[in-house]
This record gives sequence, structure tokens and C-alpha cells, in this order.
Amino acid sequence: MRLRKMGLVMAMMLAPAAQADEGMWMPSQLPGIGGQLHAAGFQGNPADLADLTRAPLNAVVKVGGATGAFVSDQGLVLTNHHVAFGVIQYNSNAQRDLIQDGYVAADRSQELPANPDFRLLVTTGFDKVTEQVLARAKGKTGRGYYDAVDAASKALVAECEREAGVRCSVATMFYGRDFYLVKQLELRDLRLVYAPPRAIGNYGDEVDNFMWPRHSGDFTVLRAYVGPDGKPADYAKDNRPYTPPAHLQIAREGVNEGDYVMLAGYPGITYRHRSAAEFADQVQWRLPAAVAAMKQLQDVIEEAGAADAQAKIRYASQLQSLKNGIKRFSGELDGLKRSNAVAVRQQDETAMLAWLGGQRTAKTLRPQIDAAMALIADGSATRERDLLLGLIQSQTQLMRSALRLQRLAHERGKPDAERESGYQQRDEELIAGQLRQVQRRYDPTVEKRLVGALLTRYQQLPEAQRPPEFDAAFGRTPAELAATLDRVYAATKLGDEAQRLHWLKAAPAELVNSDDALLLLAAKLQPALLRIDDERKAREGDLLRLRPAYMQALIAYREHQGRAVYPDANSTLRVSYGKVTPLKARDAVSYAPLTSTTGIVEKNTGVVPFDAPKPLLDAIAKGDYAGYLDPKSGAMPVNFLSNLDTTGGNSGSPVLNAKGELVGLNFDSNWEAVSASWMFDPRYKRAIHVDMRYMRWLMDKVYPAPWLLQELGVPAK
Amino acid sequence: MRLRKMGLVMAMMLAPAAQADEGMWMPSQLPGIGGQLHAAGFQGNPADLADLTRAPLNAVVKVGGATGAFVSDQGLVLTNHHVAFGVIQYNSNAQRDLIQDGYVAADRSQELPANPDFRLLVTTGFDKVTEQVLARAKGKTGRGYYDAVDAASKALVAECEREAGVRCSVATMFYGRDFYLVKQLELRDLRLVYAPPRAIGNYGDEVDNFMWPRHSGDFTVLRAYVGPDGKPADYAKDNRPYTPPAHLQIAREGVNEGDYVMLAGYPGITYRHRSAAEFADQVQWRLPAAVAAMKQLQDVIEEAGAADAQAKIRYASQLQSLKNGIKRFSGELDGLKRSNAVAVRQQDETAMLAWLGGQRTAKTLRPQIDAAMALIADGSATRERDLLLGLIQSQTQLMRSALRLQRLAHERGKPDAERESGYQQRDEELIAGQLRQVQRRYDPTVEKRLVGALLTRYQQLPEAQRPPEFDAAFGRTPAELAATLDRVYAATKLGDEAQRLHWLKAAPAELVNSDDALLLLAAKLQPALLRIDDERKAREGDLLRLRPAYMQALIAYREHQGRAVYPDANSTLRVSYGKVTPLKARDAVSYAPLTSTTGIVEKNTGVVPFDAPKPLLDAIAKGDYAGYLDPKSGAMPVNFLSNLDTTGGNSGSPVLNAKGELVGLNFDSNWEAVSASWMFDPRYKRAIHVDMRYMRWLMDKVYPAPWLLQELGVPAK
Repeated sequence: MRLRKMGLVMAMMLAPAAQADEGMWMPSQLPGIGGQLHAAGFQGNPADLADLTRAPLNAVVKVGGATGAFVSDQGLVLTNHHVAFGVIQYNSNAQRDLIQDGYVAADRSQELPANPDFRLLVTTGFDKVTEQVLARAKGKTGRGYYDAVDAASKALVAECEREAGVRCSVATMFYGRDFYLVKQLELRDLRLVYAPPRAIGNYGDEVDNFMWPRHSGDFTVLRAYVGPDGKPADYAKDNRPYTPPAHLQIAREGVNEGDYVMLAGYPGITYRHRSAAEFADQVQWRLPAAVAAMKQLQDVIEEAGAADAQAKIRYASQLQSLKNGIKRFSGELDGLKRSNAVAVRQQDETAMLAWLGGQRTAKTLRPQIDAAMALIADGSATRERDLLLGLIQSQTQLMRSALRLQRLAHERGKPDAERESGYQQRDEELIAGQLRQVQRRYDPTVEKRLVGALLTRYQQLPEAQRPPEFDAAFGRTPAELAATLDRVYAATKLGDEAQRLHWLKAAPAELVNSDDALLLLAAKLQPALLRIDDERKAREGDLLRLRPAYMQALIAYREHQGRAVYPDANSTLRVSYGKVTPLKARDAVSYAPLTSTTGIVEKNTGVVPFDAPKPLLDAIAKGDYAGYLDPKSGAMPVNFLSNLDTTGGNSGSPVLNAKGELVGLNFDSNWEAVSASWMFDPRYKRAIHVDMRYMRWLMDKVYPAPWLLQELGVPAK
Repeated sequence: MRLRKMGLVMAMMLAPAAQADEGMWMPSQLPGIGGQLHAAGFQGNPADLADLTRAPLNAVVKVGGATGAFVSDQGLVLTNHHVAFGVIQYNSNAQRDLIQDGYVAADRSQELPANPDFRLLVTTGFDKVTEQVLARAKGKTGRGYYDAVDAASKALVAECEREAGVRCSVATMFYGRDFYLVKQLELRDLRLVYAPPRAIGNYGDEVDNFMWPRHSGDFTVLRAYVGPDGKPADYAKDNRPYTPPAHLQIAREGVNEGDYVMLAGYPGITYRHRSAAEFADQVQWRLPAAVAAMKQLQDVIEEAGAADAQAKIRYASQLQSLKNGIKRFSGELDGLKRSNAVAVRQQDETAMLAWLGGQRTAKTLRPQIDAAMALIADGSATRERDLLLGLIQSQTQLMRSALRLQRLAHERGKPDAERESGYQQRDEELIAGQLRQVQRRYDPTVEKRLVGALLTRYQQLPEAQRPPEFDAAFGRTPAELAATLDRVYAATKLGDEAQRLHWLKAAPAELVNSDDALLLLAAKLQPALLRIDDERKAREGDLLRLRPAYMQALIAYREHQGRAVYPDANSTLRVSYGKVTPLKARDAVSYAPLTSTTGIVEKNTGVVPFDAPKPLLDAIAKGDYAGYLDPKSGAMPVNFLSNLDTTGGNSGSPVLNAKGELVGLNFDSNWEAVSASWMFDPRYKRAIHVDMRYMRWLMDKVYPAPWLLQELGVPAK
């Protein structure tokens, strides 16, 4: 009996390490894991998926900052309702509320232009440029290494973007080991073709967000247009539909539990291959510290709001964002603890290093790995300071404005190409916009308290973490701090919009010698902030130089284990594969992987966000599902759940079946999986998709668009 | 496809009517449904369960207002922690907090006496007395029928209670068709033997209440004592353990999904066999109207509380009780709608009446059924008035006190035996206690607003529902009402406790001619209330006379369908049987029928009510479950779920396996089942039990009581 128990405990501890279906693969890696793909149920040839610039993967595009896919040869694009929300909002007004009512273009002439800054990117090139990027970095260290990589990347991008209508970027895989030049065609004329009403496209809203079971029709159909010459163009009446290099075909049949599925998209960022020390730092310090600091700010705002209704309104949005952050970080922390992430990663790293000791490469790699680890450990010496400085620059309005104005003045002294990103000429419009918004979100008493709370924490840091400029500016005691803040906020005119915009246009010298107390304070702090920035870049340069050794060891170790390694997500196209999978979320609580229209009626209260539109409720009551029902359950599917590996940026990713046909549209993940950016725990990591049968049924029976179904190759029944 | 859909819709509509495992059976009925019992998995002889005064059913007792069972031959009684909570509280003080810490008697000498009013009832007689009860009622109608039944019942009880230490009552089965004289031995010396800490016995408290999955050790062990002569006695040191007529044996093995289980207990009240019109009234009027009225009172109290902190405290308990009532009634309403209860009951009744038309009994039964239905329909003519008068007499303090004092004066004019129950000599102590409590729960402004809110609704009723005495007392306009309340509450001294207790002792004539404005008002209202009471009794008398015809038709119709009929619950011993059953609560949401200690850790926040004690958390971490693990899941069970038919009063009911061994202790039901007092919907009706393996493990490994396990016949491992 005792043995049996031990076995269970071991099984639970090891479960998170099992790599079943984990992975955000570069398409070029897929032939190498073809065996796994076929074992999982894939029926195609993995070699056909190896090139993201060829069909079918070049049908998968970046759109509105997330993912979408071409679904017809005349430029129809399918993405999420929440991804295209800005397009729907842009076309709505008091007379025509497309958010509330949805939109069905009667024919092609009725397709509505998107907001002019809405973009779609078709990846047309993806070339390894490691040698070019690192050519001048070799032999350098720290800031020199960083600058060499930065300069080489900028040069490659500038060269690539000589072609009209094209956007380029350099992406690194495995943290500095490989570099790729990504070339993308930038389409600028997108149009709204079909959107369900908010109460379908966003059914459940914040209440259901992250909460399986979901019942949302979170999809929208757009169409990409190009100029008469076939090139990217701004919106014009005479533009014609874009002919994509490839498009996906909607499946005629649906999925069920256990079915193979795969997904392609542009996941933003993950930390799966960070070192054990970084895992420990995240769980043991970073998340708890960030939550504690944000809670303190929350308390300040709530206390001030209770006494002052006007302040309450001005800080409502910031308060909401703090609450969301606290919830999200707490969820990530809970998840990482539940998955025992620190211990699992530590065991794995220890085993890797032990194995490496017996390899010939150890002599080269181990010193670099040790150096990288020492650098990472050094980072924790200033982590409290860095967290507080980050919050001061993100959670204040006037203080942030003053710091930004001074930094801009500083950067303006350089050629535009050498300016810090975010402070180049093309960024100045954005900065002006931010300076204008201050007015609606600022109250001097609240800001003083926020800054005071953060700087009181700062004053308690050990001396090594305190830049002398800050000590000089704010003093060493709470009383000195309070007096300084009272004096500075009493003698600044930055609370006035005209003043802020005036300083935006002022000459650098004028700013540095400003008679505004807050600007003057910011000028005194700036040397410290620039120095910290320099130190950060030097550290990043060294990590870029050293971390590849860690990755090389990990890749070799995994190869030894018979496993491949995917690079951490970095907004480039990735493919994941897996299965339609239920979720055992908690003791005695299980969730089935398909939801049905029954659940819409169960949840419906008639009140936002559970206020399904009458046409939908009527259609459900009528039950006219012919041709769309799930044959196994006899129910009309709405959403489904898979174990596909996703993260932010995967919104709108197409989900394909074993034959490569489109069966779903990714739009959410489950709450238990918010920690997946660090660790993929197969027990809890799930992705949530719109079932294409639900979309087709809506388009056929509820808000009919037969011409569109025809073009999509799945005619109305 | 269309046919398939119809089939599904039909199946869903009929599902609630399926009677699988439904039923709160009288033990005497069990041999008649022996086939069903065996088909479900029962391995014993149903005839052995037919007599509730013989073993094993006479081991099942009434205790603390709910159910318990003897579990040793020396008087050990097992019931819920929440049923024995008063006993635990009575033995707790600042130095020794048994609520927080639990209690393990080191040996028999350490067993602690219960509060003196705590009682245990062993049923020793259960005899049909229909003929005696109805002998003088035959030929009478209305109030005459009611009084004849009442007098005959009182005479039987008085005769029965001549025996010392015995409590008797008359219970009617099938609403007046059958009457039984119940004789119970009343044990008055109960002692506390074993109670877990609150954070085990009530883990999850109100958050988890009604919410499967649960993780509560809701059990307590008591022991019954009798005098040295073996007769019931008040607590005395020299008393000795009671030797029960029978006791249950704890099973050595546990249960798993699909296993047969049965339960015996004292369910309080159900309405399953009420007429379709009463179902419709409950769903379409009574529940919504009660919720609306209670919400109005909630608003009054919350508004007053926001302006007056003292009033907020005084009405906190009433507010909580209103909120609970609103939640409970809303849940019942949702459940009845979800089960389509009105239509299902209506279809069934229509089919029954149609079938009856073809029977010879129709000539006798149908006129009585029609008369009963007409009476029920009549009741709706005054339902608004009755609801409001009920709320005035339950949701006020001074007004209620005045009415009660006047009614008591009125009743005191009669011989004690003829007084209204609740106003007899033995009730006067209770009334005095209630009059004393007024002080802590009363604020004149709030009470005036509550009475005002209710009487404003009253003023809007049609004339036929308004007794002239009320119109005369309160006027016909809101202005007259407000003036009356201001005047009366300014000129009453009932807010003073000494005054209330003075009037309690005053002579009837003094009260009727009181100089206290509120007492005088109550005296003016009293004739109306007495008249309404008379009308109610007349109606109840006629229903008692006529409803048996409806029941007779139903029983015959069910027999024709091959089904037996159990009487609605009435606090007499009943048996239900069924299976350990999962719950599919909502679309894509399934609950397994067994929870495990894993869930305790998952839920634990360290904060009440999820603050499992350290010894429990340590034991879970240690995982020393040898001999108690569920062999199928390899987990340590805590609670389990069944489809057993239960209602309020079933708390503490023993749950037995197919061999009649004790496997669980009933303590809760699921939220989806709050409507089960009206309709048993097999899709949603579940009962929640403590797994005996969890209790034994706690007694063995966490808070050890080896001598107790020995006595229970399940020695420590």
C-alpha cells in the first residue's frame, strides 16, 4: 500500500514534465517531428508544412496584432470578433450600431472599409541571417555585442524594406543562437464582410473570459483589397480583392473528443526555456512582489476614490487595469505552484547539466552557461529597484510625462536612426497623444500618494540599489519625501495640457533648464535612468552572447532524450498539434471538450453579457440544425477545447483537422492555463476554439449570408 | 434529421417524469417494491425493512430536529456536525473552544453533557389509526371536519403519552387518507463523544453549502444515556449508556460510482403529489411574489442601514435571513422552470383524469376531485392578502408582539386543551423569550418603513381581499397609512421590554382596552385575523376530506402504470434507494460522485471557511491512507454523491450499501436540487454524504480515538 502511494505521488510530480503534444514549432522543424505528428493522427505530409512562405501556411497571416487566415481565393480573411473589434467600432455610430447588431454585407459592394491603421501582414520571406547579424558582434561583449547585433539587424531591415509595401524585422530563435529576417507584405485596405452581434461574438465577456465552458461566436470575416495593380494600397473605391497565395478550406465535418487538431499562428512570448533560477525568481519573488506592489497602489486609489468622487472616476480605468493585473499574476502564480514548476524545471536543469558533464562540448559550453547564470543571478541584486522604477514610469501621469519629455529631449540630440526606439520621429505623434490623455486620468492628490507609496518602498532598499540621483532628489526619510512631493507638485504646470504640449515642442536645452519643478526633477533623475538603461543593454548583450550555450546544451540533451526543442515564442509563425481534449480542472470537476447551444440558453439572463440576441434564441428554440449537429452527441456545437499549445497572439489562429481542413478558430484559453507562458502542464493547458459548425449555422440559419457561404465553399443547406 | 431532433426534444421533455429511483418510501411499502430494490442492487430481504419499529430501521432516530443512527450497542449515535452544533457550542467557552478545536473524549468518563433541551427520539410504535381519527369526522365538512380530526388526534396523543418518557403524535399519509399514531421514546441525556474542528465539520461553510463538489467532515458522535433503571432521564452523573434496540454496522469497504445505496431518515415536507394547479401557483405566482416582496423589505433595510449604523446592526440578522430566503426561493423557481415542472405535472394530471374517466371509481372520485380543485382555485382569490399578512407577522417586531399579545389574551379565555397550538400554557415561556429578543432587533424608523411597505401593497389589493378592520385601521391612502403609523408608533411603549413583559401577564380585558396605541390597533385587527384563521381551518378541513380522492385516483393510475406511490414527506421515517451517481450540471460541466482529500488542499486558502486545520493538512501531505484509499481511483475519499431522494430533515441520515452496512452520512444536497421538494428531476436531484472512510481515517490518523473505533467495530489500522 505504501508503495502504491509513492507511485501516485511520483506520477503527480512528473506529470507536468511529460511533453505530450507540447510545442510551438517552427514550420521548418515539422518534417523532423513527422513521426510524432503521424502518431498523433496527422494524415498529411509534414514536408508540406515545412515552409511558411508556401501553401498552406502562407494562408495564415498577422492581422490587427493577432492571427487570421485567408479562407477564399478572393481575399476573405477569418479572424476573431475581438481582433476585428476596432474595425466594427470604426463603422458604428448612433444610427448604425454594428457592435450591438453585427453586420452582414448584402454583397461585395456593401463591404465596409476598416480603420486606416488596421493592417494585415502576409509573410513572404523567412531567411536565416545569423551570420550577417553576428558578423561584427563576434569577439565583443556587453554593450558592444548588443550594439553590433542591433546595428546589423537595423541594416538588414532597412535593406529589406526598400521594396514598396513590405515590412521587415529580425527575429531571434533560441535567445541569440539563430536570427531570421522576416519579410511581410503589408495590406492596408481591409473591409468588414460579416460580424455577429456583440452578444454572440463576445457572449459572456469578462465573466466567461478564461472560463471554460464557453459559448462565444468570436469570429469576424474581413476581405483584403489591393490597388488595381495588385499592390498594397490605402483604401480606395476602385481597389480590388487581393488574391492570396493560398487559402484554407473549411471542413465539411466537425471534430469530437480525441480527434487530431493543429493550429498555426503568431504566439507572442513564452519563457519555457528560461533557466531554473529564472523560474524560481518568477515564482518566489517577481509575481508575489508585483502583486504586493500593485495591491498597494490599488489601496491608495480606492482610499482616495472613497473620499473623492471625481478622483474615483479619473482613476477608474487604472484601478481596473491594476485589478486585472493582480488577478492575472495571481493566477499565473497559482498555476506555477500547482504545476510545481520551480522544482520540475530545477530537476530538469540539474539532470541536463549532469549529462552535459559527460559530453565533449562541456568544455566550451559549461563556462558560458555558468557565466550566463551568474549574469542572471546578478539581475536579482537590482530587481526591487527595477520593479519600482517600472511602476513609477507606468502608474503615474505627470511624473511619467516629465520623464518622457526629458528623455525625448535627450534623444533628439541624436540622428533619428540612432534614437532609442519609442523616441524616434515616427513615435512623436504617439507621445503627443499620450500627453493629451493625461488630463482625464490625473488627480494631483492621488498621484502624489501613488508616487509616495512607490518611493517609500524605494527608500527602504539597500544602498546598492539606490541611485544617488534619486536619494538627492527625494531625500532619505518619509518626511523629506513628502516635503519634496508637496513642493514639486505645487510648482509644476504639467497638469495643464497646453503646458505639456508646449514642452513637447521645446528645445532640449530649454527643457533641461526648465523652470517647472517637476521637469527639473525629471532632468535630475535622467542621468540615473540612462545609466540603468545602459547597464540593462550591456547585460542583455551578454545574455544574447552567452545564453545560446545554454540552449545548445538543452537541445543536445533533449536529442539524447529523443525529443526536439522548439524556440520560445517571439511573434513568428508557429505550428502546434494535439487533440480535442476534456479538462479535469479540480477534484471531481470535469469539463467536456464540446459545448452546445443548450449552454447558451442555460447561461442566458437577458442581461449583458449573457443577453443572446432574439434571432439566436429563436433559432435555438426552433432547433433547425439540419446538417450542423454533432452526430455523436446530437447537439449543436458552439466551442471546443483542445490541448493545443498557444499564448497571447494566437487569437484568431486557424485550427485544422488531420486532413488540414479548417475546423475551428482559436479565441481564448482556460484560467488554469494562464501560467503556460512559463510551463506547459498537460493536465491543465487548454485552448478554446469557435467550432466552424457554429459559424456556418449562424451564417446559414440565424443571420444568413448565402453568397458568403458559397464563396467559403460550404454552401447553405 | 428532423425526426432525430424531435426525438431529442421529446426525450428532454419527458426526462423529468422518469421516476428512476425517486421515492421517500414508508418502510411498510418496501416489500411491495422489492423487485425494484433488487433490480437496483439491494442484496437483503425487503421484508426485513418493512417495520420501522424493528431492527435495523429502529436504529434510525430523530435527533436535534433531524436524523441520526445508533452505531454501537452501548448507545453511540452518529449524526451531522451541524445537527449537533448546539451541543458543541454548549460545551465551548473562552478557555475551551470545541467549535474551533473539535473534541475527542479520552474515554467514556470524558463524554460531555448536551444542552438540557437536546432530545433523541426512538420510534417504538407506528400504528394505523385512520378509523379512530375519522370516526367523528364522517358526514361533516369544513371547520367541523377539521375540528373532529383535531380532537380525535389530540385524544389519541393524550392517551398514548400517559406512558412516562414517551412522545406521541398523529401523522397523516396521502393528505388525509391514512392516519398513523407515532410513539417515540424520548431520551434526554445525550453526551458529546467526538466532534471534528469546525474547519473540518463545516469546511466550506456557506460558500460550499449546496455546492458539489464538497469536502466536509460533517459528522459528530454522541452517546445516549438513561437512568439506572434503564428509563429516559435528565442528565445525571450516575446515568448509564442506553442499550438501543438495534444499531448499524459501519462497512469495511467503501462505495464507488454506480453502487447501490439506500438511506433512512425523517424528511420534513414535500409537495410532490400536489395538484397541477398548485404547481402552477407555486411557479407562476407564489415564488415570484414572495421574492418580490422580500426584495422590497431588503431594500428598506439596506437603505435604512446605509443611513444609520445602529439600525444596520439591529437588522443584520433579518437582512441575512431575507437574502437567504430570496436566494433559496429563486433557486427553487429556476429549478422548477428548468425541469419544466408545471407542464410535466399538468400533462400527468390530465392523463390521470382521462384514465379515471374510464374507471368505475370515477363516479365517486371525480366529484370530490373537482371539489378539491375548486377549493384550491378559491385559495388564489386571497393569496396576495395571505402573503402580506404572513410577512407582517414574521418580518416585524413590535407589530408582531402586539398581535401575539392580543391573540394570547384571546386564547387564555379557553380551557388550555382547546387553545390554539402555540398559545397553550406550555408555549408561554417561548413567547416570553421572543418578547425579550425584540430589543436587539428593533428600530422604530425601520419597522415603520417595513410595515409601511407591506401595507402600501395591501392598500393596492382589490376590495374583496381587504378585511374592513384593516381598511378602518390604516385608511385607504398612503398619506392616511403614514399618519396612522406615525401616530401609533409615537404612542406605544412596547419598545420597552418591561412594558412587553407586563402586558404578557396582564388580564385579557386589560389588553383589549389597553391605553397603548399599538396594542389597541392590534385589538382592532384581531377580529379580522381570527376570521381569516377560521376560514383557513374550514378550507383545510375540506381539503383533508376531499384530497384523499385525488390521491386515490393517483395511486390507482400509478398502479395501472405499474408504479407505486409514496406519501409526501411529513417528518415520519422514510427509506429511499438509489445509486452513487455523478452529476451533469450544465452544458459541458460534469461532476464525479466522489471527492478526495486532494480537493481539500486545492480549496484551502488558510482563511475561513477554507482553513483546514494543520493536523489535517499535515496528514494529507504525509499521505498515510493505508486501508482507507478508494481502490479504484487510488485517492482518499471525503464525500460522495448519490441520487437518493432527500429533503430538509434528512440531515444525519445513515446511508447504507446493498448489504445494509453504513457507508455514508447524509449532510447536504446540490443547488440544482433545491426544487426537489416539488419535483424529483433525476437529471439534477442529488444528495451529498460524508464517506465513512473519511470519518474512520480522521478517527484513526488525524485526531485519533482508537477506543471509539474499537466500539464502532472498525478498529484502527
